[in-house]
Amino acid sequence: MSDTDQIENGSKNLDGIATVELKNIALQLDSGQVLDQVTISYRTFGQLNEAKSNAILICHALTLDQHVAGDNPTNGKPGWWSSIVGPGLPIDTDKFFVICQNVIGGCAGSTGPTSMKPDGSGVYGIDFPVITIADMVRAQNLLLDHLEIPDLFCVLGGSMGGMQTLQWAAAHSERVFCAIPIATSARHSSQNIAFHEVGRQAVLADPEFHAGAYQQHGARPRKGLAVARMAAHITYLSETALQRKFGRNLQDRDAVTYGFEADFQIESYLRHQGMTFVERFDANSYLYITRAMDYFDIAADHGGNLAAAFQGTSTRFCVMSFTSDWLFPTSESIALVRALNAAGANVSFVEIESDKGHDAFLLDEPEMFATLDGFLRAAARDRGLS
Amino acid sequence: MSDTDQIENGSKNLDGIATVELKNIALQLDSGQVLDQVTISYRTFGQLNEAKSNAILICHALTLDQHVAGDNPTNGKPGWWSSIVGPGLPIDTDKFFVICQNVIGGCAGSTGPTSMKPDGSGVYGIDFPVITIADMVRAQNLLLDHLEIPDLFCVLGGSMGGMQTLQWAAAHSERVFCAIPIATSARHSSQNIAFHEVGRQAVLADPEFHAGAYQQHGARPRKGLAVARMAAHITYLSETALQRKFGRNLQDRDAVTYGFEADFQIESYLRHQGMTFVERFDANSYLYITRAMDYFDIAADHGGNLAAAFQGTSTRFCVMSFTSDWLFPTSESIALVRALNAAGANVSFVEIESDKGHDAFLLDEPEMFATLDGFLRAAARDRGLS
Repeated sequence: MSDTDQIENGSKNLDGIATVELKNIALQLDSGQVLDQVTISYRTFGQLNEAKSNAILICHALTLDQHVAGDNPTNGKPGWWSSIVGPGLPIDTDKFFVICQNVIGGCAGSTGPTSMKPDGSGVYGIDFPVITIADMVRAQNLLLDHLEIPDLFCVLGGSMGGMQTLQWAAAHSERVFCAIPIATSARHSSQNIAFHEVGRQAVLADPEFHAGAYQQHGARPRKGLAVARMAAHITYLSETALQRKFGRNLQDRDAVTYGFEADFQIESYLRHQGMTFVERFDANSYLYITRAMDYFDIAADHGGNLAAAFQGTSTRFCVMSFTSDWLFPTSESIALVRALNAAGANVSFVEIESDKGHDAFLLDEPEMFATLDGFLRAAARDRGLS
Repeated sequence: MSDTDQIENGSKNLDGIATVELKNIALQLDSGQVLDQVTISYRTFGQLNEAKSNAILICHALTLDQHVAGDNPTNGKPGWWSSIVGPGLPIDTDKFFVICQNVIGGCAGSTGPTSMKPDGSGVYGIDFPVITIADMVRAQNLLLDHLEIPDLFCVLGGSMGGMQTLQWAAAHSERVFCAIPIATSARHSSQNIAFHEVGRQAVLADPEFHAGAYQQHGARPRKGLAVARMAAHITYLSETALQRKFGRNLQDRDAVTYGFEADFQIESYLRHQGMTFVERFDANSYLYITRAMDYFDIAADHGGNLAAAFQGTSTRFCVMSFTSDWLFPTSESIALVRALNAAGANVSFVEIESDKGHDAFLLDEPEMFATLDGFLRAAARDRGLS
């Protein structure tokens, strides 16, 4: 890639917040369509070593972004994995060069439905092409090329981040020394597609959606997107956690009101989750990214044989799941581990006892921290990183 | 109750489809409000014996109705428990007199939001008072009074029908010889309230809802109610059943379309569930009945002590749950059985192996049939029924 291909609006010293417009780089998509002039927003932490051998790519989940650590400039809050990524933390930015990129299709700076079309005819909206997890990973490969980093010491992520991690290992294993898929699966299950479809239908049912052209109408499908988020949010938690945290507790009242107000804390909590989500996330991005997850099925790309996707891989794997995660249950991780073993891969697997459900991967889970720390130390040693 | 209190638009010979208007009967509700002129639509099967000792009340679930067996006149399909209720079936209409009543708040004939207000000022709509499971059961008691049946040989039902069954046993145990709560709980859990709240918000978000006055506007919140039904429907099935039945199978196509059509069978199925539901169910009824379930908490009515609700009961219980039911998991039934044991009740408990999820109680489950049959035979013998 020549310098003339690149216009960068950030620091090229690879530390901090950056946006790169990859002019003249066509991103070929699984759909057959092509994305021109891909913009990639990403964030880095730490320093790339001289051998360029200490880069870690963290892949984010459905509604998250590149602000994995540090402050998130859009809301002033700490990054979503601040307790894991930083100096002296399990993903030690004193040792590693950490990259996190907003996925294409997202709404935190990378090319997505809210982006302007290259021909200047307005924002994409629903004209944005449907993208896949593989497309997201292709865009991440473009960023690596741009940063002139030959390969990654590690790729990791939870949920959809885990899907990207697996896609990296399946399609670009030569660039991945080790991979840590967390709370994820090699395919989206029927139930998970079902929940996504409910969310999409809630968005599509909102008259403010305007067939996807709500930006052009100065509108936003807030109510529909809020309902989508409420439904999804339940799936991120466990029944046990909900019962412990909220139970049947009433919200700021001593008795039920015999009405449809938020009598219960859980109702108030969910409504709050819905209302705050629509302020930070784009409805079209929600449609596109949930679709990308639905389409994800690594085995299908290999004749239905998941092991074939990883045959002969030299990538080493650390697979993690959580006992109370019913969205990406341990059975999915076990199926993955079996396939990796059948493929002759070096794989370790940890099921972590937690009652916090799917969201456990975003929370302070000491066993996850210890596993990350131990696995990365051992892999770093084998990679020759001090 | 005097005959002058009653106007009946059906057969009084207690066999068939009937509607009774209980004029001058005020139904005092938990909310403090009063429902005047309660109309009760019900259906009966079999013959009441001379001793009036063979009556079985079947309580229906959230979106079902009084058409438990026979043909449903609204759609020509068999009743929802036709494989269980009938001559020679586990609930044998050659032996028992079976009653099934549409719950108040419903939309299959009993007083509910679609009913005319007694003052002639139009339909209730959202002016209908919020009702509880206890209110539904009070209305069932009124029907028993009307039918001059002193007590019930058995009360049973699944899901919300199980809640009514438990309410009968807790508040009217002198009228209940035996009770069979199936796939249910003595309180609605935080997660279950959460799913109901998502559904209600989907309805409320629909501009065709018109603040509950959609009938007056000649409108119906179809899209919102369809989304509510789609979300709820997922909770009625199990992940295993969805995977087996639909998996990631595509709907009438060989490849994904890279769009938002129903590429997957599960999407097509859910959309169909949503669309057909709105043709048969009223949106306000959905709000009221889900609310009644949310409010259900028998222990709360007894100082938080569930056993106290059943202390000294002579009702005998048969509690059933299904292994793959995650909406009303076995743990809820176990909590109930423990309380019943602590109350000194005669209780048997069966957890049935099934991968069909919550809806298993509506399906052909041989172990459920055998348990019903065995329990009812033994109880009938002890009751002195031939």
